[in-house]
Amino acid sequence: MARSETISFLSDYGLADEFVGVVKSVVRQVAPHVAVVDITHDVAAHDIRAGGLALARAAQYLAPGVVLAVVDPGVGTSRRAVAVEAEENGLVFVGPDNGLLAAAVSMVGGARRCVELTNEEYHLASPGPTFAGRDVFAPVAAHLANGVELDLFGEPVDPFSLTPGMVPLARQEGETLVGEILWIDRFGNAQLNVDPDEIAHYGDRVRLRWGEQSRTARRAFTYGDLKTGEIGLIVDSYGLVSIALERRSAAQELRLRPGDAVSLDAPPE
Amino acid sequence: MARSETISFLSDYGLADEFVGVVKSVVRQVAPHVAVVDITHDVAAHDIRAGGLALARAAQYLAPGVVLAVVDPGVGTSRRAVAVEAEENGLVFVGPDNGLLAAAVSMVGGARRCVELTNEEYHLASPGPTFAGRDVFAPVAAHLANGVELDLFGEPVDPFSLTPGMVPLARQEGETLVGEILWIDRFGNAQLNVDPDEIAHYGDRVRLRWGEQSRTARRAFTYGDLKTGEIGLIVDSYGLVSIALERRSAAQELRLRPGDAVSLDAPPE
Amino acid sequence: MARSETISFLSDYGLADEFVGVVKSVVRQVAPHVAVVDITHDVAAHDIRAGGLALARAAQYLAPGVVLAVVDPGVGTSRRAVAVEAEENGLVFVGPDNGLLAAAVSMVGGARRCVELTNEEYHLASPGPTFAGRDVFAPVAAHLANGVELDLFGEPVDPFSLTPGMVPLARQEGETLVGEILWIDRFGNAQLNVDPDEIAHYGDRVRLRWGEQSRTARRAFTYGDLKTGEIGLIVDSYGLVSIALERRSAAQELRLRPGDAVSLDAPPE
Repeated sequence: MARSETISFLSDYGLADEFVGVVKSVVRQVAPHVAVVDITHDVAAHDIRAGGLALARAAQYLAPGVVLAVVDPGVGTSRRAVAVEAEENGLVFVGPDNGLLAAAVSMVGGARRCVELTNEEYHLASPGPTFAGRDVFAPVAAHLANGVELDLFGEPVDPFSLTPGMVPLARQEGETLVGEILWIDRFGNAQLNVDPDEIAHYGDRVRLRWGEQSRTARRAFTYGDLKTGEIGLIVDSYGLVSIALERRSAAQELRLRPGDAVSLDAPPE
Repeated sequence: MARSETISFLSDYGLADEFVGVVKSVVRQVAPHVAVVDITHDVAAHDIRAGGLALARAAQYLAPGVVLAVVDPGVGTSRRAVAVEAEENGLVFVGPDNGLLAAAVSMVGGARRCVELTNEEYHLASPGPTFAGRDVFAPVAAHLANGVELDLFGEPVDPFSLTPGMVPLARQEGETLVGEILWIDRFGNAQLNVDPDEIAHYGDRVRLRWGEQSRTARRAFTYGDLKTGEIGLIVDSYGLVSIALERRSAAQELRLRPGDAVSLDAPPE
Repeated sequence: MARSETISFLSDYGLADEFVGVVKSVVRQVAPHVAVVDITHDVAAHDIRAGGLALARAAQYLAPGVVLAVVDPGVGTSRRAVAVEAEENGLVFVGPDNGLLAAAVSMVGGARRCVELTNEEYHLASPGPTFAGRDVFAPVAAHLANGVELDLFGEPVDPFSLTPGMVPLARQEGETLVGEILWIDRFGNAQLNVDPDEIAHYGDRVRLRWGEQSRTARRAFTYGDLKTGEIGLIVDSYGLVSIALERRSAAQELRLRPGDAVSLDAPPE
């Protein structure tokens, strides 16, 4: 492999424990020239779906190099540890084969090559099996950044055998589009799995229904174009439709959560 | 501009989403030689005042280079995006012109030059207008760090036209000084907009009044000099008077919040 | 001293204020070549025990260089500020002499040399005594990383005079081992101060008693080997016994907290 200058790092380790620091310390000793860029470490514990979506949103912006991603509830079991070379952007993903990597890999052209990380020469000796981030993924990522060839880390794996991701697609039911909330961001905006083209024919106003609620939203260019209390549909920074309020949390005020179904159609006359 | 080695970065993006990581990834691809130093990203969402005060407290300690600051509720509207070269410390601030930068810029000698970031050659193409940190401010900060001249980023702006900050001044009412709580820090200390000289004539003991409360505080050198339960007035690490308790949170126990008015005078005989 | 490339940094500063960013800004101006690796900054405010344990868990994994550790409720009082050179791993610890450093230093061979940081030439001038991280520890750590000799920072201190740590030992009471919870990690696993060898003779099942509770746990290799609802005893990534549930928080469901006593013995027939 070409030597990499950057390891981008996402996990559900949180920042309260020393996990992230220890992983970076391991990386630094194997590959002192590398800069580690944190994507986020506050993925909810064990939440593969949320971690995979965050990684996919970030993927096209990441610096070329290694992407270390660890949300790994099956750590120490027979789930595979893998490294996946993507077709585009010069990215190699390192992490568990549990669906976490899939959406991100497909954002950068899909998998070109893949190995299972079976060669323990590139792992740390470990007192227990529960911290693969430190003992397996970190040293492998660092050796990859040093330019060690992918096929030295273990047996080749058919990319088609990798666990698929869990990105739900919106579906049409008659005149209604049934979407799902992918993500609530810090500001309380609720990103839908809906492309703006899919709702263009409804016009300026769109009826939203979720749970027992039914409300009319207005399509707008940015948050500041909304009036107080008005529900907006904004094309967000990833090109998807999101539900937003001006300077307040749509998720909190409308009680929206990731995974909730939301129906969109034209408001009744 | 001279090439910069450091970009100091403050935002209200939080660390739970991938926003900060994506901004750094953009920076790294434009200016790979730069180290990004995080000031904080946990400014409350949209809280320009709190972000501006944190930036001002940090300003005089920042490494020379670019300061990227994003608390930007008006993102995508007609609020200006600017770069402001300060008179001192070799700092150039990049962010929205909404008052966020003002107090910090004035801490380092005021603005020497300013441009509006209208030249889209230095921006990323973007699917939506809501993530200016990624699409405008990050690439501009990185190109500035690469040494691109300030006036290439857009039209000159009169520094006097920049939105002023919101740092309140304490005021004298007869024998009483009426201050305001600027900041509650992690340890629960409540920083006032009061200089120690302004309360020197009250002597060792000072009466504090806020809301319906009235308590006598004692001036002390450091937290450890306070007795359990005693309210202290400490000159804090920024040279301002703060209300403190020994190893406990003054804010929590005395119910103090940023923005609260606090009156100081000599205790009754 | 040899020049160092890394400063590892742990504190109770949190990430909401600008404290960590200011410390790094000071370091960067004194020693621009250094990379700062954050261990954690979310040690609970003033919690010397928790900070000391996190530092000890990380110690053997840290990159050679300086370790800056600040949990310092006695800041500004007569507590000593120290730099402690460890026997192993090329580590020099900088922080308050309040027990924070002790367990970590002993993990890397104990103290070889120690000085009190009395030479103010290596400190920043400061408006108040309350931010020693910025004004004393950061510049000292950075000058150490630049290769300044340890004995230039102040008077030698007898390593035996350093404040000891607070790591409790498990004790045998008849057939029962009485341990203590050292740490609850992000996933809710409760690490005990118990070595797997100490409970080997109990066999596969171990009775746990704490507070008014009594439950039987099963020894397992990893979290995924546990059945839903089953309490596991896992050898964790530091080689200690921890109480765990599969994909759920043992701490939350069993109401375990750091410092709680837990008795272990063979379950009744």
